[in-house]
Amino acid sequence: MTNSIRIHDTFWGSVRETVRREGIPYQWKALNDQLPGAEPSYCMRNFRIASGKEQGKHGGCVFQDSDVAKWLEGVAYTLAWHPDEELERIADGAIDDIVAAQQSDGYLDTYYIINGLDKRWTNLRDHHELYCAGHMLEAAVAYYNVTGKRKLLDAMLRLVDHIDSVFGPEEGKLKGYPGHPVLEMALMRLYDVTHDEKHLKLAKYFVDQRGQSPLYFDQEQDICGWLNGTLGYSYYQAHKPVREQEDAVGHAVRALYLYAGMADVARETGDAELAAACDRLWNSVTRKRMYITGAVGSSEYGEAFTFDYDLPNDTVYGESCASIALVFFARRMLRARQLGEYADVMERALYNGVLSGMQLDGKRFFYVNPLEVLPEACEKDQHKRHVKPERQPWFGCACCPPNIIRLYASLEDYIYTVTEDALYMNLYLAHDAALDVGSAKAAVSVETNYPWDGKVAVTMTEGTAGRFKLALRVPGWCAKHTLTVNGDAADVQVVNGYAVIERDWQAGDTVVLDLAMPVTVMRANPKVYEDAGKVTVMRGPIVYCLEECDNGKDLHLVHLCTDRTGDAVAHHEPELLGGVTVIDIPGYRELDEDWGGALYAPYAAAKREDVTLRWVPYYAWGNRGLGEMRVWCMKGHSRK
Amino acid sequence: MTNSIRIHDTFWGSVRETVRREGIPYQWKALNDQLPGAEPSYCMRNFRIASGKEQGKHGGCVFQDSDVAKWLEGVAYTLAWHPDEELERIADGAIDDIVAAQQSDGYLDTYYIINGLDKRWTNLRDHHELYCAGHMLEAAVAYYNVTGKRKLLDAMLRLVDHIDSVFGPEEGKLKGYPGHPVLEMALMRLYDVTHDEKHLKLAKYFVDQRGQSPLYFDQEQDICGWLNGTLGYSYYQAHKPVREQEDAVGHAVRALYLYAGMADVARETGDAELAAACDRLWNSVTRKRMYITGAVGSSEYGEAFTFDYDLPNDTVYGESCASIALVFFARRMLRARQLGEYADVMERALYNGVLSGMQLDGKRFFYVNPLEVLPEACEKDQHKRHVKPERQPWFGCACCPPNIIRLYASLEDYIYTVTEDALYMNLYLAHDAALDVGSAKAAVSVETNYPWDGKVAVTMTEGTAGRFKLALRVPGWCAKHTLTVNGDAADVQVVNGYAVIERDWQAGDTVVLDLAMPVTVMRANPKVYEDAGKVTVMRGPIVYCLEECDNGKDLHLVHLCTDRTGDAVAHHEPELLGGVTVIDIPGYRELDEDWGGALYAPYAAAKREDVTLRWVPYYAWGNRGLGEMRVWCMKGHSRK
Repeated sequence: MTNSIRIHDTFWGSVRETVRREGIPYQWKALNDQLPGAEPSYCMRNFRIASGKEQGKHGGCVFQDSDVAKWLEGVAYTLAWHPDEELERIADGAIDDIVAAQQSDGYLDTYYIINGLDKRWTNLRDHHELYCAGHMLEAAVAYYNVTGKRKLLDAMLRLVDHIDSVFGPEEGKLKGYPGHPVLEMALMRLYDVTHDEKHLKLAKYFVDQRGQSPLYFDQEQDICGWLNGTLGYSYYQAHKPVREQEDAVGHAVRALYLYAGMADVARETGDAELAAACDRLWNSVTRKRMYITGAVGSSEYGEAFTFDYDLPNDTVYGESCASIALVFFARRMLRARQLGEYADVMERALYNGVLSGMQLDGKRFFYVNPLEVLPEACEKDQHKRHVKPERQPWFGCACCPPNIIRLYASLEDYIYTVTEDALYMNLYLAHDAALDVGSAKAAVSVETNYPWDGKVAVTMTEGTAGRFKLALRVPGWCAKHTLTVNGDAADVQVVNGYAVIERDWQAGDTVVLDLAMPVTVMRANPKVYEDAGKVTVMRGPIVYCLEECDNGKDLHLVHLCTDRTGDAVAHHEPELLGGVTVIDIPGYRELDEDWGGALYAPYAAAKREDVTLRWVPYYAWGNRGLGEMRVWCMKGHSRK
Repeated sequence: MTNSIRIHDTFWGSVRETVRREGIPYQWKALNDQLPGAEPSYCMRNFRIASGKEQGKHGGCVFQDSDVAKWLEGVAYTLAWHPDEELERIADGAIDDIVAAQQSDGYLDTYYIINGLDKRWTNLRDHHELYCAGHMLEAAVAYYNVTGKRKLLDAMLRLVDHIDSVFGPEEGKLKGYPGHPVLEMALMRLYDVTHDEKHLKLAKYFVDQRGQSPLYFDQEQDICGWLNGTLGYSYYQAHKPVREQEDAVGHAVRALYLYAGMADVARETGDAELAAACDRLWNSVTRKRMYITGAVGSSEYGEAFTFDYDLPNDTVYGESCASIALVFFARRMLRARQLGEYADVMERALYNGVLSGMQLDGKRFFYVNPLEVLPEACEKDQHKRHVKPERQPWFGCACCPPNIIRLYASLEDYIYTVTEDALYMNLYLAHDAALDVGSAKAAVSVETNYPWDGKVAVTMTEGTAGRFKLALRVPGWCAKHTLTVNGDAADVQVVNGYAVIERDWQAGDTVVLDLAMPVTVMRANPKVYEDAGKVTVMRGPIVYCLEECDNGKDLHLVHLCTDRTGDAVAHHEPELLGGVTVIDIPGYRELDEDWGGALYAPYAAAKREDVTLRWVPYYAWGNRGLGEMRVWCMKGHSRK
């Protein structure tokens, strides 16, 4: 492949350097139980015990193996853009430890290797053997793609062969499938490399078998886990066959990993019925069950979707992994159909609900990403105790931190969708790319100060040759844009969210897209009852929030004047929060003086004090100490 | 005693007849497991098993004995105002069954009698022996007061003697106290009858020992229950000695029963320090932790108080028993100090948060009394599943239904506070009373159509003699009132919430108090963040709500025009909901059309449709089928 992409973006460069310099070494320590004050992971130790190198019991969750898999996958991506011999040596060592634990028949899962192989494959519902296999397979493909080293890939091919020998539609095989999806999309990534029909067939089997009657999970022998009383099998998206599913239900990460795998299989096999199911589920998630930040999963109970338009801001779950999974799903929908809507959602999650999961220093993480925090409530209200008002150093269930790493370390993969005749640019960030577009060649250099500025300059560089379509995304949030080609205004119609310019491109050709990025006060669909009477602020793709450190306590008393939004001022603060554009908007604060001891009183217009509301990017909240935060604030009018 | 009160009120008469005719026979069936479709109670069966009349295991909760106690207490009260030989015969039979189970040493608790007396008194924290004793003692006192029959009273005197022999400050006695208070106030009611210092002393011991170090509960032997992780011993109000307690914390019913007992002891012993603790706790409850309906207990977790101004309307607990307990506490505060504020809270709970607990037909009940209900959320959101959108026929833990009965059956006890020289009238309802006020005698006839009309006519009747103060409460909700004495306007200053008229009263003297009762739009203290931007409606003591059957679905889209409240119209609907005054106020409904698939969009003033909001009394909600309900609705302005 001649394809290569090199990011040199200010915004994402900083995030990715944090991931590489801080996140990866920090998480390696975590995986080896060397983080002072954090819960031990036991992850690497489990592999050494499983291979007989150490003695001991299995530690951590049943899916602990997946933590190093996601870390390794992230390492692989960073090695692609920042070669690092020492890091690669550590990764090779980790792979040695992992592969050493593999059984002669290809089986690999430290929980059952340590606790008794006789019980393996008896609790697919709650024990994550197929989930761990999926993540390790993704790591193996990534590590092979970047380093060319086959050790982990070969081991995973043996594991896949083993799984293929155990599960499938054929007589004598188990009719099971993953309790927690991910293997479906992992097999499709493997298939991208191997083009071995066996891998596609196994992925398709897992997708299609899910939810078929009689329900496999009902027949398992060693079920001892918790079956969600309210959600039942919808928790596992196994309440009915996937082609019949209408609404996004159950555990949000499981759901979105599954949908991503379904989209892969549908695209690769040209399965229109399965694609239609993906469309329905996409619409269910993004039009009825998604927060403005790209957070998904409204309830801590089952870490799950609830029902249409039920989007509480304070008891939200919004797991970092779920928004990451939404990015995966969006990317796969884009591969199937180049609709800007998919990229809009992908961008929404990348800049907001995922990025909020990591502290600016890369060392602390949110598992839950709330849109409204009152620290006292997080402490004293049992129903908000899952909401942490500050990021945590690590988690007993540490799925999120390495997931964030592997996503941002592989941001290159999300910029483009390349078809036979078109180069779709989904994300805007400064980078150089060399890509084959059918028989044409695109060498592209992009300069931009996105997301703080909407101007994107695309220059064709040496190596560009041939005719192809350059499709520049015009985001759904953008009401006005201009486009020039080689300095001349180009009147290009936007189709499906992209401005498409087709020509014989040559080095030196320059396209400048300028996306107007005014401060925009936003409202939610009135059906979202938790946002009734409230507004928030966006600018470009960035969702903003109010923090106590800027606006004082009792943020519920603060109102944004919807008639004064023309007076909003955005200005860049290079020293603040790693460099952010902040927004000031006129508002007022209701005063709670003169109430004496009363809790209730006859209505009177509240006394107020004019204030300037300071909005900061949501992703950066909680980096300046403990305090209240709100994405949605009360709306009001400057005149009483 | 010559004291007697006879209620002939339209409003309460109807409730009390429902209680007597429907509630008492219905609940007797429940206690005997004869309610089709309802969870069996096992209550009476447990007593028969404990006395050897039947064979079997103990059924129901550890505190199941208390259900019949509360029922018996309620029966006693109805016998006072509606003699019924058949009912008294049934009650006598119940008492026979109860007393037959009593042990020779006076002990009585079917759970331990059936399961093994060796374990008795080993888990005061979670097993309710002292709680059941308290309720049975209250029943015994009431039954004796009304019927003069001593069988249950004598049995309870033996039980109290037994308890007194086991618990107390003396060497060799256990230093325990009730995990669930109620015995404290029960002993004080017994003391009112016996004037035996032993009973006062035991009550005082239980109050004062609570929360002392080393904590008794920590030393118990048979603790097997759940210790609330977040609340710890504050769940039991045992986190510190009661005199040091500042905030109302923990399980709301336990808390308020305790405070009621504390208030009794403080008043009887003239203990200023304990009275000060009562004042603090009163203020904590009523000024910071009480809903506008008189509901208390913000969280299902621990059925508990949470923190100041945390009053969510949809996840509220608001147990019927907790509001009843608030009435008990208020009445005892009134006995200590005649402040109208106490009666205001008592009235608030009686007409709203308690009364909502019972269906108009007396046959179904709420355990949880929400201020906002979206039926779909109650079904699909785990954190709202404790909120039932319709009243239930019975409960496995059926504390509330008989508690409602005993409260309303004894409403006579809440009308007056009588001191040496004054007759304080706290509640307004049509009735006749003959009461000693010091050496004077008051024979009073009251006519009123309260709570629908604010005019209250008080006439002194035959038997009135002597000088005393007639103190008529001017409720906190009333901004304007007039008063006439024998037809002449009387300019009487309102002191501590009462208009006090002192004279030598004679038969025929008439005082007319006219309380202006306009429709009043209400707001909450701005610190109540869950009510930000919202208003509700009261008229007189009645809190109103919106129901879907009157106002359509999506009540969160409905706004009340705060600038059109002058156009509010109240009119009485004698056929509706047993006869209620309904209120119509101009408002508008935000329309959710034209949103297409979008969840979020740039702010624009919402399209609206003018509507007339129909408000009905909160206590009567949910009597017309399943649907949404809201006490607090969005506020708005008629001009955009």
